[in-house]
Amino acid sequence: MTSGKIIIVGLGPGPDRWLTPEASHALEEATDIIGYIPYVERLPDRQGQVKHATDNRVEIDRARHALDLAQQGHVVAVVSGGDPGVFAMAAAVFEAIDTGTDADRATNVQVLPGISAMQAAAARLGAPLGHDFCAISLSDNLKPWDVIIRRLTAAAEGDFVIALYNPASKTRPQPIHDAFTLLRSLKSPATPVAFARAVGRADERIVLTNLGEADPSTADMSTLVMIGSSETRFIEREGQEPWLYTPRHYGLKR
Amino acid sequence: MTSGKIIIVGLGPGPDRWLTPEASHALEEATDIIGYIPYVERLPDRQGQVKHATDNRVEIDRARHALDLAQQGHVVAVVSGGDPGVFAMAAAVFEAIDTGTDADRATNVQVLPGISAMQAAAARLGAPLGHDFCAISLSDNLKPWDVIIRRLTAAAEGDFVIALYNPASKTRPQPIHDAFTLLRSLKSPATPVAFARAVGRADERIVLTNLGEADPSTADMSTLVMIGSSETRFIEREGQEPWLYTPRHYGLKR
Repeated sequence: MTSGKIIIVGLGPGPDRWLTPEASHALEEATDIIGYIPYVERLPDRQGQVKHATDNRVEIDRARHALDLAQQGHVVAVVSGGDPGVFAMAAAVFEAIDTGTDADRATNVQVLPGISAMQAAAARLGAPLGHDFCAISLSDNLKPWDVIIRRLTAAAEGDFVIALYNPASKTRPQPIHDAFTLLRSLKSPATPVAFARAVGRADERIVLTNLGEADPSTADMSTLVMIGSSETRFIEREGQEPWLYTPRHYGLKR
Repeated sequence: MTSGKIIIVGLGPGPDRWLTPEASHALEEATDIIGYIPYVERLPDRQGQVKHATDNRVEIDRARHALDLAQQGHVVAVVSGGDPGVFAMAAAVFEAIDTGTDADRATNVQVLPGISAMQAAAARLGAPLGHDFCAISLSDNLKPWDVIIRRLTAAAEGDFVIALYNPASKTRPQPIHDAFTLLRSLKSPATPVAFARAVGRADERIVLTNLGEADPSTADMSTLVMIGSSETRFIEREGQEPWLYTPRHYGLKR
């Protein structure tokens, strides 16, 4: 085994104030940075460090490239947004290893946790994830839509707060509409809903509504959609945006 | 409204390398720190800053205390471990506000996201949260046990990866046993299971097993229990601990 390694780093939702010291350090020490173009472009150019920016469609190729460089002795930071362990590059790297060679399985790989989009959204909104919740990706690029239906149905039956990732993209506008149609058949129309777009960035946009009135087309690829449990509620405030939270007490009376 | 405010800060799972710059800054600027004793004790003494360490059983009293100080003009950091928005102090503060006064609703409150235990555990293990997952607290202090049963059942029906928080404590050893009995009736005995205790701290301990063979009493109050979906798998490695991950592809063939 060489001294090369892969460090899988999450850049968080955007601002540096959410980037952990561990992640900052790894980005400084790496000989190579590999990632989707917008993430790699966020990082400064550093002397002696090579940036490899690739298109989003080729996550497995990116993982393969990282493994090859690490096996040649490079210290490779594989970057993605948010937490790399949540709907991001860590699983792609392990998929490449799992379907790869003995040399891949012998490669030194570290994953560094980061702040995920649902956490930035939750903090911005109040405390909607204060109690049991689930996180579901609406992308059906890699899983059949019937698995997504099964999970949305179970999430409603379990009365979980639901954080939806990848609700829509330009080429895939339909999933969030289909998800809302299903959830409306299973949950109260009064259920609080928040569309939290690009939280912490300049183009942040928050829309607070409920399941009955929500317009699913509010969501784009930068939006985290938060759907309450039966307990999740708004706290109305005079002259200010309401807070959204889920009590720790089940059946809390106001 | 005074210039006082409450900043709800997560200290992460322990090590400073996971504490965001935003959280570090808030801890430096606060006039008052309020939290459960072990979290407050983790922080250095700072001139001009008052530390109020209280017992864990009185989260709502702690929230009330923070509101009173903020309304008197103090800048109060309410601290807890992990992400304060996930099974922690943020929901307790909003509960106090929701059942409180107009002055409480007018109080300036900010929540700062942090690294939660499931993320540190996932990063340490590989990428078990790489696909749809849910987080469930097994504490029945504040919710009826039948709600926990309903959620565990739904999580199994939805084939989610499951992160269990608060699996057991000295006074409450039974929940993790009951949860495993239920999950064994619903999921394959080959389902990967990890007990990830105190990840990132000196007393870290990892146990990798499966649902059929797991000993639930491995879990204590510092343990995050991770239970796989039908897709979650180990990658065996020669002479090293296997990695645990959930592929992004549903139905991935090796």
